[in-house]
Amino acid sequence: MSSIFTKIINGEIPAYKIAEDENFIAFLDAMPLVKGHTLVIPKKEIDLIFDLESEEYKNLWAFAQKVAQQVKNAIPCVRVGVAVVGLEVSHAHIHLIPLNEVEDMNFKNERLKLSSEEYTEIQNSIINS
Amino acid sequence: MSSIFTKIINGEIPAYKIAEDENFIAFLDAMPLVKGHTLVIPKKEIDLIFDLESEEYKNLWAFAQKVAQQVKNAIPCVRVGVAVVGLEVSHAHIHLIPLNEVEDMNFKNERLKLSSEEYTEIQNSIINS
Repeated sequence: MSSIFTKIINGEIPAYKIAEDENFIAFLDAMPLVKGHTLVIPKKEIDLIFDLESEEYKNLWAFAQKVAQQVKNAIPCVRVGVAVVGLEVSHAHIHLIPLNEVEDMNFKNERLKLSSEEYTEIQNSIINS
Repeated sequence: MSSIFTKIINGEIPAYKIAEDENFIAFLDAMPLVKGHTLVIPKKEIDLIFDLESEEYKNLWAFAQKVAQQVKNAIPCVRVGVAVVGLEVSHAHIHLIPLNEVEDMNFKNERLKLSSEEYTEIQNSIINS
């Protein structure tokens, strides 16, 4: 069965896309810890990020670097944090999380509920940054 | 002033080293969230990981990939998680954290207090894995 992320890649589930190329895609987390919380994933459906072949693994991180700079430019924060957890969705994904304090990266925190207007505004601010 | 990590690189502060090359070093976190919690850093003292020059940034993640595989082989866990936070030490560092549940990556958790014998045993098990 396709992962929920593969469904996003295939356009079967909508997402607020930030960036995309042949191998990778970035979109806003649908259950954000903070505004601007973004996911970066390989299009290849692989569970563990460290199991990616070396070149693809490095290129994924390079893709995330560019997206992180855009997030940092668009979202007021002290810095953009990184997390790879993956205990819930078995399709490797990098969380980029605008941080103001360490508590912003606590995955047990209640998630934000944003309107589609808010998501679209965040999406546009990151894309245009 | 040198960061605490630069002091480790220079041998001014002891650390349980896991791997080292010309540009990068990995060692056990002195305040581990779980056993096997490892830090991977560039020797260059730079605050934000995303400010590293592209090649060095990718090579740092490649170095972390190898260390993460060693940690996974040595430490019983569901997977090795990744975090970059950096709100306390302004020298870019990647946390590699053996995870069994998402709570294992909560940076507000109390840190383990391990004996030097325990650190040495963990260090050797990772190095030899």
